Amino acid sequence: MSNLKALKGNVVFTPSFGEYKIVKNGYVVFEGKNVVGTFESLPEEYSAAEVVDHGDKLIIPGFVDLHLHAPQFANRGLGIDKELLEWLKVYTFPEESKYQDIDFAKKAYQNFVYELWKHGTTRSVVFATLHNESTILLMDLMDKVGLGALVGKVNMDRNCPDFYIEDTQKSIEDTESFIKATIDKYENIKPIITPRFVPTCTGELMEGLGELARKYSVKVQSHLSENRGEVEWVKELHPECSSYAGVYEKYGLFGGDVPTVMAHCVWNTAEEMELMAKNKVFVAHSPYSNLNISSGIAPVREFITKGIPVGLATDISGGHDVSMASVIAVSAQVSNMRWVYVDENYKPLNTPELFYLATKGGGEFFGKVGSFESGYEFDALVIDDSSLADVNERSIEERLQRYIYIGDDRNIVERYVAGVKLEEPKF
Amino acid sequence: MSNLKALKGNVVFTPSFGEYKIVKNGYVVFEGKNVVGTFESLPEEYSAAEVVDHGDKLIIPGFVDLHLHAPQFANRGLGIDKELLEWLKVYTFPEESKYQDIDFAKKAYQNFVYELWKHGTTRSVVFATLHNESTILLMDLMDKVGLGALVGKVNMDRNCPDFYIEDTQKSIEDTESFIKATIDKYENIKPIITPRFVPTCTGELMEGLGELARKYSVKVQSHLSENRGEVEWVKELHPECSSYAGVYEKYGLFGGDVPTVMAHCVWNTAEEMELMAKNKVFVAHSPYSNLNISSGIAPVREFITKGIPVGLATDISGGHDVSMASVIAVSAQVSNMRWVYVDENYKPLNTPELFYLATKGGGEFFGKVGSFESGYEFDALVIDDSSLADVNERSIEERLQRYIYIGDDRNIVERYVAGVKLEEPKF
Repeated sequence: MSNLKALKGNVVFTPSFGEYKIVKNGYVVFEGKNVVGTFESLPEEYSAAEVVDHGDKLIIPGFVDLHLHAPQFANRGLGIDKELLEWLKVYTFPEESKYQDIDFAKKAYQNFVYELWKHGTTRSVVFATLHNESTILLMDLMDKVGLGALVGKVNMDRNCPDFYIEDTQKSIEDTESFIKATIDKYENIKPIITPRFVPTCTGELMEGLGELARKYSVKVQSHLSENRGEVEWVKELHPECSSYAGVYEKYGLFGGDVPTVMAHCVWNTAEEMELMAKNKVFVAHSPYSNLNISSGIAPVREFITKGIPVGLATDISGGHDVSMASVIAVSAQVSNMRWVYVDENYKPLNTPELFYLATKGGGEFFGKVGSFESGYEFDALVIDDSSLADVNERSIEERLQRYIYIGDDRNIVERYVAGVKLEEPKF
Repeated sequence: MSNLKALKGNVVFTPSFGEYKIVKNGYVVFEGKNVVGTFESLPEEYSAAEVVDHGDKLIIPGFVDLHLHAPQFANRGLGIDKELLEWLKVYTFPEESKYQDIDFAKKAYQNFVYELWKHGTTRSVVFATLHNESTILLMDLMDKVGLGALVGKVNMDRNCPDFYIEDTQKSIEDTESFIKATIDKYENIKPIITPRFVPTCTGELMEGLGELARKYSVKVQSHLSENRGEVEWVKELHPECSSYAGVYEKYGLFGGDVPTVMAHCVWNTAEEMELMAKNKVFVAHSPYSNLNISSGIAPVREFITKGIPVGLATDISGGHDVSMASVIAVSAQVSNMRWVYVDENYKPLNTPELFYLATKGGGEFFGKVGSFESGYEFDALVIDDSSLADVNERSIEERLQRYIYIGDDRNIVERYVAGVKLEEPKF
């Protein structure tokens, strides 16, 4: 029983979409990496647990960021005067190409990993760059801090600048080396296959990556239907496919036996949504990015209604803000605007719905992550919201919502991943 | 010459819409409350100035928040699941009614004033409540801290709950008392006439307030065309007027000889815009609020193109975020969405354009405020953005944009209003 631990405080999580479970002044018990359960008082059978009493603080699941680009971290807040394709060319490709330099990569990735820790993003699904060496360095750094992640070496072999492009065969070989080097190396970090997006990947490359995904049982991430110009371009590149999603599907990179997450999904057709629902393709909803580079507003409630799994994402650096709490707030806001301007059939999203998407919704891409139900991996944040206290009494639900809307990293006092408390990174 | 002072650092401001003036490693010289000018090196004639050297920091004009509700401060981050009219009834009126209790008001307003200081909002245009006593207390607190503001005792005499409504004559008399008590009391704080909005003000009340505005040369603030339901309601209440703006105009509360600022202006007709341009009615653009309570997206570039003056605003607590830097970022974002979904004739707003609106644009409602041009009141922030430094060299313009997008109150190290440095408030 020496592995048995418990945190005491105001426990809040969302076992299902839109439904809070609140245990006021209660316990969340975990053993090793997994949650035992939540309790109003500590059951006799767990009386040997080592209890840390957090008083009146909030205890919530850690945040899951389903899509972000680690090498774009330094570009946050810059280059948001362009749409996607120009933005890639002018700001993003030049920045990513710098990660060939391992010393540059080390400095930049240390900053990145520190900020994830700071903002309580306990799990993330990450694009790195073309470079195996610096991508593995990133995974080493995240592992050292104790963060959970799926990290991808990026693939791209067409429509790219000369200074940032791969040969098709070399790209496939590098990816296999990358997978072999990392698949068993870490406890909470795994490789993920990462074709950048259809416009920068030939059919031959995508086919090779699909084969690797099946051979090694590795998950897949990419981008889908983010921007109107991009969607048009994919139509021109693949007239043989009836949709953008259909291109990924053709090459075995679209869910089903290969668990897949697609970032953005702003401009999907009804046909694509059907395929996403059938293949259980996850959507990484990235509202900050969709606002900053003028993409649009994804139909999130429609996805959910149609049975498509959804999580939330920062999309650094299309998005500028690392905080998943902020992503919850902006997701509510854009859902309001979609309701006003685009489609009044799907009502706006509220805080408990979005809190679910930012924890268990995205966590499902990892497995049993993002909840305090029995058997889930114990990822948690302890929130001291006393600095946000005001002149009125507030319920736990109201306190959580106020932390989400007006709190920041200063309110996060402890972080856990898979049962392990994360200390402040010192590099 | 004993009043002559200068700050040294990287000076950035916007003399005109969208145009930065940057003086790298330069000086902004001020004498008493007013700016003398900005210089690359200190001119001989100002060599006696007391210089504070801020090294590589940024020196920018203080932020101007053209519209916020001080008594809603404690409600930030709450009650954002409703549209305007329900939101007022369920969350806002009950909260505001508490300010009859002067002890409650004191605690709450101290918190509010501290946050304005913290976030570098050096000037603001503020709605208080119906209550003269607590509104004057708020002005006393702001004056003590040294903030500049226009503060209004709110008027409302119809369509309000029993616990928060005024008698028409009493409302007019109280307003006159309020004006007399405050008009000469402070250096940088003045009263402003504040009919809540047409639905809660009878014609008789609005007429009385219009007379007071002229009698005492006091400015006016209210709300206009924020939400579709509200606009419909005003049509029903005033079938004799051809527009919502026309109701204010009828009662002498719509610019011209009575300088007026109207919050929101999301759903204005072409006729209203013409009237706004003619009467130089300021728009307080409040994107966070318009997102949170599902109002819509104001046509800001259209206003500017048509000669209507615009400033930015938090609209606490329809908006949840006190930071005007954040309001710049979200203003860019909603302008992108308006361009995508509503009107592609007006291109999105960029950072130097919005920085202008958040400083000199809103500052023009006060007079010569929001710029470092000669003769302007010296309102300034000193920004230490070293915590935001990354692995790349950045220009001053890029550093300012990164502060706006990813910085926070921790980056503001000094604040000035009208030549006076503001110390951290201790209540």
